[in-house]
Amino acid sequence: MTHILSADIGGTTCKLGIFDESLNILEKWEISTNKTGEGILENIYDSFVVHLNRKNLDINSMIGMGIGVPGPIDFENGVVNGAVNLNWTGNIEVRKIMQKYFDGPIYVDNDANVATLGEKFKGAGQNESEVVCMTLGTGVGGGIVANNVLLHGHNGSGAEIGHFLVDQKKRFKCNCGMKGCLETVASATGVVNLVHHYYSNMSLKSSLHDHIMNKNVSAKDVFDAAKNDDEFSQFIIDKVAGYIAYAASVISVMTNPKYIIIGGGVSNAGDILIQYIEKHYKNMTFRPAQDDTHIVVAKLGNDAGIIGAAGLIKTYVIERENK
Amino acid sequence: MTHILSADIGGTTCKLGIFDESLNILEKWEISTNKTGEGILENIYDSFVVHLNRKNLDINSMIGMGIGVPGPIDFENGVVNGAVNLNWTGNIEVRKIMQKYFDGPIYVDNDANVATLGEKFKGAGQNESEVVCMTLGTGVGGGIVANNVLLHGHNGSGAEIGHFLVDQKKRFKCNCGMKGCLETVASATGVVNLVHHYYSNMSLKSSLHDHIMNKNVSAKDVFDAAKNDDEFSQFIIDKVAGYIAYAASVISVMTNPKYIIIGGGVSNAGDILIQYIEKHYKNMTFRPAQDDTHIVVAKLGNDAGIIGAAGLIKTYVIERENK
Repeated sequence: MTHILSADIGGTTCKLGIFDESLNILEKWEISTNKTGEGILENIYDSFVVHLNRKNLDINSMIGMGIGVPGPIDFENGVVNGAVNLNWTGNIEVRKIMQKYFDGPIYVDNDANVATLGEKFKGAGQNESEVVCMTLGTGVGGGIVANNVLLHGHNGSGAEIGHFLVDQKKRFKCNCGMKGCLETVASATGVVNLVHHYYSNMSLKSSLHDHIMNKNVSAKDVFDAAKNDDEFSQFIIDKVAGYIAYAASVISVMTNPKYIIIGGGVSNAGDILIQYIEKHYKNMTFRPAQDDTHIVVAKLGNDAGIIGAAGLIKTYVIERENK
Repeated sequence: MTHILSADIGGTTCKLGIFDESLNILEKWEISTNKTGEGILENIYDSFVVHLNRKNLDINSMIGMGIGVPGPIDFENGVVNGAVNLNWTGNIEVRKIMQKYFDGPIYVDNDANVATLGEKFKGAGQNESEVVCMTLGTGVGGGIVANNVLLHGHNGSGAEIGHFLVDQKKRFKCNCGMKGCLETVASATGVVNLVHHYYSNMSLKSSLHDHIMNKNVSAKDVFDAAKNDDEFSQFIIDKVAGYIAYAASVISVMTNPKYIIIGGGVSNAGDILIQYIEKHYKNMTFRPAQDDTHIVVAKLGNDAGIIGAAGLIKTYVIERENK
């Protein structure tokens, strides 16, 4: 019992990996995502068999298998309730299906949670027991590690950090059906929302003027322009950072993590974003809670998912046995 | 090894109790709080010895001792960093001091956390693994139980629910030094803040007019008047409830508890307050997170503390051994 199998299922590709007990990668590779129902789970198993065979490893000697899926999860039962990007509808019993092929322990969690666990164990979380990750991509996802384990909440809505009201004016509609969620002002989409909202109402001119007028400006354009001293873009980043900092200030008095990790596409902006966030965070956060709390950029990029999925086995199988 | 000793240290009295393994009370009593330094801990031990002796129970056969203290705690080490109401300044090593007298396991936590644990095990929390308590008294305290254990955070600021910004206009100064915290608009003090703020700016007359003008109106007055159809008081409760509901909506997407328990003096308002909170909560909370989440009034009153302090021993000694 020496290795962990890990799969991070995405809409286009599945990332697969074989890990040792300390979550070091022995091998990682990708297969295309088969979107005709549950076939992808059999494909994943078959691919593990082939790769293990090449290494003279026996699938029956594996410690367990961790699986990340882009959809809402019933963690206890390993069931996914719909995954739009995989064309999965209704309840898909991922653990039960995989158990037809694989005998060992299987843990399934959503993509934001496994990415958080990856960053906790091997990334910006420095293996601390209290870590929160905000993933700022097309939407805003999150993961909370407290007392060394992920929080799922009573119905799986734990760490749905993108969906609480931060824009009191409720200017933009969210995909969740509400208005004013963090996601509407802090995701890549949110950055663009704010650009269009403010540009027409302000006298500041921007090097992005034509992009803005043609409605093809991206969050990346805004961060690049800000780095090149575009005042309007800096103004927008300051706004975005204010909302992210507010979320961080709330998180700090809720679960009080040592590391608040900013991941996802928006985090590619890097230091400039963190500097703006820190300025607001320091001013708006309960003093004792901000003491020795660090806001940092995610480190693992696309590998966070497979490392974290393997981390499920480390958390729920290896560390439990060692208790 | 059949019984648990429990102490809830307050500014005026210490509540003491002897519990069985299922947290049923065998006996509870009070002693006055000796405020001359650490003497109270020896007093507590002596009182336990006397009461155990009467029951023919041996202090050396106790499973453990749980202690609640009104001050910030380093939970891991059982150290309190100052407790104003006890005249304790600096770091007081409560566990270490008590270990001079008592040999068994000792766990120490703050009053808000032990009250939460009490409500979780024997009160409004119905023994669920995901429970949050907001204690609305002179200030606002909180406790978060997730994955069946209390969250302390990396530096003990977990569940400091009273101290994040909810009043965007930052109208009232908080004891923590910031402005606009939940505590400034949802505690008993907060209710009075809002009364004075709105009464001078509104045409609504109130049966509390004289009290308001004489600056001796209390939160209880406002809730009583609201129940007697005083429109201004109902307006104030609606405002207070809106802020509490906002906090509940944030909590729901952070740790997603099954029960959000409202305790403390303000919760004596009872059903009328819960009704106002629920109305706002339903409108402002991420739909999946509010599903099967219940906002309820605390049940245990002043006993929550000793039950929860005993609950520390159940959580960290009894349940760990049974794992």
